[in-house]
Amino acid sequence: MDDDAMTRFPVPDLDELPDDLRERIEDETERAGFTPNVFAGFAYKPSHWRAFFDYHDALVDDTDLERHEVEMIIVAVSGVNHCYYCNVAHGALLRIYAKDPLLADQLVANYRSADISEKHKTMLDVAVKLTERPVEVGDDDLQRLRDAGFSEEEVWDIGAVTAFFNLSNRMAMFADMRPNEEFHSLGRQRRDD
Amino acid sequence: MDDDAMTRFPVPDLDELPDDLRERIEDETERAGFTPNVFAGFAYKPSHWRAFFDYHDALVDDTDLERHEVEMIIVAVSGVNHCYYCNVAHGALLRIYAKDPLLADQLVANYRSADISEKHKTMLDVAVKLTERPVEVGDDDLQRLRDAGFSEEEVWDIGAVTAFFNLSNRMAMFADMRPNEEFHSLGRQRRDD
Amino acid sequence: MDDDAMTRFPVPDLDELPDDLRERIEDETERAGFTPNVFAGFAYKPSHWRAFFDYHDALVDDTDLERHEVEMIIVAVSGVNHCYYCNVAHGALLRIYAKDPLLADQLVANYRSADISEKHKTMLDVAVKLTERPVEVGDDDLQRLRDAGFSEEEVWDIGAVTAFFNLSNRMAMFADMRPNEEFHSLGRQRRDD
Amino acid sequence: MDDDAMTRFPVPDLDELPDDLRERIEDETERAGFTPNVFAGFAYKPSHWRAFFDYHDALVDDTDLERHEVEMIIVAVSGVNHCYYCNVAHGALLRIYAKDPLLADQLVANYRSADISEKHKTMLDVAVKLTERPVEVGDDDLQRLRDAGFSEEEVWDIGAVTAFFNLSNRMAMFADMRPNEEFHSLGRQRRDD
Amino acid sequence: MDDDAMTRFPVPDLDELPDDLRERIEDETERAGFTPNVFAGFAYKPSHWRAFFDYHDALVDDTDLERHEVEMIIVAVSGVNHCYYCNVAHGALLRIYAKDPLLADQLVANYRSADISEKHKTMLDVAVKLTERPVEVGDDDLQRLRDAGFSEEEVWDIGAVTAFFNLSNRMAMFADMRPNEEFHSLGRQRRDD
Amino acid sequence: MDDDAMTRFPVPDLDELPDDLRERIEDETERAGFTPNVFAGFAYKPSHWRAFFDYHDALVDDTDLERHEVEMIIVAVSGVNHCYYCNVAHGALLRIYAKDPLLADQLVANYRSADISEKHKTMLDVAVKLTERPVEVGDDDLQRLRDAGFSEEEVWDIGAVTAFFNLSNRMAMFADMRPNEEFHSLGRQRRDD
Repeated sequence: MDDDAMTRFPVPDLDELPDDLRERIEDETERAGFTPNVFAGFAYKPSHWRAFFDYHDALVDDTDLERHEVEMIIVAVSGVNHCYYCNVAHGALLRIYAKDPLLADQLVANYRSADISEKHKTMLDVAVKLTERPVEVGDDDLQRLRDAGFSEEEVWDIGAVTAFFNLSNRMAMFADMRPNEEFHSLGRQRRDD
Repeated sequence: MDDDAMTRFPVPDLDELPDDLRERIEDETERAGFTPNVFAGFAYKPSHWRAFFDYHDALVDDTDLERHEVEMIIVAVSGVNHCYYCNVAHGALLRIYAKDPLLADQLVANYRSADISEKHKTMLDVAVKLTERPVEVGDDDLQRLRDAGFSEEEVWDIGAVTAFFNLSNRMAMFADMRPNEEFHSLGRQRRDD
Repeated sequence: MDDDAMTRFPVPDLDELPDDLRERIEDETERAGFTPNVFAGFAYKPSHWRAFFDYHDALVDDTDLERHEVEMIIVAVSGVNHCYYCNVAHGALLRIYAKDPLLADQLVANYRSADISEKHKTMLDVAVKLTERPVEVGDDDLQRLRDAGFSEEEVWDIGAVTAFFNLSNRMAMFADMRPNEEFHSLGRQRRDD
Repeated sequence: MDDDAMTRFPVPDLDELPDDLRERIEDETERAGFTPNVFAGFAYKPSHWRAFFDYHDALVDDTDLERHEVEMIIVAVSGVNHCYYCNVAHGALLRIYAKDPLLADQLVANYRSADISEKHKTMLDVAVKLTERPVEVGDDDLQRLRDAGFSEEEVWDIGAVTAFFNLSNRMAMFADMRPNEEFHSLGRQRRDD
Repeated sequence: MDDDAMTRFPVPDLDELPDDLRERIEDETERAGFTPNVFAGFAYKPSHWRAFFDYHDALVDDTDLERHEVEMIIVAVSGVNHCYYCNVAHGALLRIYAKDPLLADQLVANYRSADISEKHKTMLDVAVKLTERPVEVGDDDLQRLRDAGFSEEEVWDIGAVTAFFNLSNRMAMFADMRPNEEFHSLGRQRRDD
Repeated sequence: MDDDAMTRFPVPDLDELPDDLRERIEDETERAGFTPNVFAGFAYKPSHWRAFFDYHDALVDDTDLERHEVEMIIVAVSGVNHCYYCNVAHGALLRIYAKDPLLADQLVANYRSADISEKHKTMLDVAVKLTERPVEVGDDDLQRLRDAGFSEEEVWDIGAVTAFFNLSNRMAMFADMRPNEEFHSLGRQRRDD
């Protein structure tokens, strides 16, 4: 794992990690071709590593939201919070899952001017409001999501992904996690080229 | 479990829950004398329930921070985020763990005027900054924590508790979770009375 | 009077005060069973003491607003301004006047999730807006109050109570006034218990 | 009195007012050559009129601050709060009391670029902080005032004037009080011309 | 030119300037009776002087907006940005072009309480939003301008004037440009007096 | 030119433009291999087009700042203002001029965590402050720039570039200018690969 995965805490050696961490990290590394630095960073504290990735996995595995919808929320929230790690790493995931080389740069800047459907604009209206001004989120915001076509459980999931990345952004910013260089350019070619 | 634990999603029946949830909830209920509504609220989605409480448990169990220090962070963060559920429920826990009937009301209002040590004031300076303006958190903030006497891992934990309750506050506010009436008055008597 | 009524200015002795202050303070003390610290704090400067309590008395005595409505405004405004003294002292008064042990904690956190009528939600919408963003208050805000059923003079009074506690909060925060310990638990029992 | 003194509440006729109000208003009118609209506006509710002007009088009469120092605080606070009435009416008073035709326009815009002493810059630093971010005012702010040469009681008075005009600005903005046309140009000539 | 035209950079001598600058400045001085300090300030760097005044001239010369409409936008934007130079210098221009001695003080304080038409209120709604929260400006804002009666090109011009004075305010504030004393009182007499 | 260069105003045909615009645009197109959309967008109004690019050219041509320093300011300012067009187009220019494929994504997110020198961190501290809170920029900010090694004229230029892109961001956001697809990936390869 990259010693420079974060600057404010030491990054442990892979072979010193508990087996469950090491195995998952080896899987991720094989899949991506590199070890995403968030795996290296959180390994500083294995109990938090497990909690963090279990929560993350629940959010992306147990939902009817499409994976690119989840990543849209993540990138819009991270753009608002100005999280370098998440902008770049989840920006790459969004480009890949949405098969869209431009959308991540749009959402990092301003979801209001992104090329997205009205349904997704409503989804991000609520996600960004819950990020910036949670005290003002009301029944009407959840109703707008339902009216846009999201099921009750999807509404919960939109809130949950938003909330989780308000955690994730803050951990990455607190520890100064650095995105792998690969993430900056992944998915920037049009698939149909 | 209280049907009114939250207003924006249905609360499931206890006996419909998976065994692991039901058992933990029964334990908590026996210990507290009532079922804290956050257990009822998150039960709407068992996979999230597990992830949430596992993360929470890692934060309070695997740390050298005293439990009342953890609760101080939680209440100060929740006060800043204006989270009704967490102000009240964790206010009660703070009164109990700190054996101090006044501290929670102080931290809900303004940690700067709380009766706390300089060390804890520094801890809350950083927690509140990471909550309100994460983009401005820098090396110097972590150094201030170290200079105040926190170990490197405690510094991580301060960031982690802060980050987690930025998730937790937002879930409670999104779902409109309501604190159990018992929490409002728990721990308000002086122990030495 | 409590020497610790405030931390940033000296608290005078009761028997050194002008007669009119001393008599009113003795009355208040007899009524409450203790001397609320705001009486001790303002006594630092008798001319301001008189002006402050005369204004306060005009607001609560010469109005068609119910006393618990006045206290609702005070607590919501103080919650937004993060005033420890007023949150706690007026929180107690609100619990007593509204005969509701929960409402003050709700309004300190977020009036939007309080158990209140639509009429009172509108009242607090305007009070909080006038507190946070007075530059944006417009004719339509006053019209909303009239439409909610408040008389013209009650509309004025809602503005006046809000404005006064923007003074009061700032004086309490500037002088670091401390609520009497009694206020933290007053009115927390249900009346019908 | 001018019917247009404010737009959101009716202005009473002078001869319908209680004697104490009418007499004071006649005195003010004789002194100024016109009736300042704040006297007309507050006359909507005589009990508030009395409370407001008694408080005001205590602030300007019972203080060692020079009158132009009081008006400097008022104009800087009103500029920050964007209060049209107070900018203009107290701008005129400041020009007159400070014998400076430019200072009011400077303080309405930005006290940081005003032609004032370091002592007064410190005074306005604290007044503006107490206006915008009272939650952050600390012991060190009051100490800065003492270090700048203000007595303990003058420190209190700086806080008190600031707090009062956070009330006054909000009342003027809520009722939409309009400054008399005379105020716009009063004191704009250099005295030594 | 006035050496005190700005405090943070030296003001060049008029006769050291390139001919094109000197000639324009002499023209302006003849017209106004004094050299507006912005001409002196920008002369610090002739290439920027030319760019700044060419842009300015394009905005006021090539537009169907009335000159007083342009100045209304400028003063409202400068009031929000708290720019002393522009408040005062363009306040004077607005008084002259609008033949209204009060409007500038109104717009510096709060365009929402100014005596202007609904059409101009809409114009300033958008100008102030583009100044304070450009990220939130949307299609609906431009549509509101069109619905208020502005042509497509006037809509562009409203955006352009707003954008330019977000530059101009920042240059004046960065260099600490000081308005000429004359500007403070120009245009304060009613024309029909 | 691309009809989709902006969404809120029509884009003129190249051959309908005045000669000076057409020639410059053809030059830029030849140099870049495509017509940057800002040239197409501003062509809506040729007088503004000329003013805008003349100002831009003065900023980048008549300065001792290195071109990559200018682009660093632009990207940091655009990131703070959330301008999609400038983030992407100037992000590409920064990657090219700085020969650094990562720096633009860092500055869009948070200049405080960018891999830059202390001198450049100071430069961006001031640029971002002048963008977000111009009212607070003081002598000490300019002094910090001088202390960091910038000449007096470079200090002016840092202010000027910042101010200009507060204009440019707002025009791009107002007209909804869209970055050319090419900009998203330009300069993302390491030069030494």
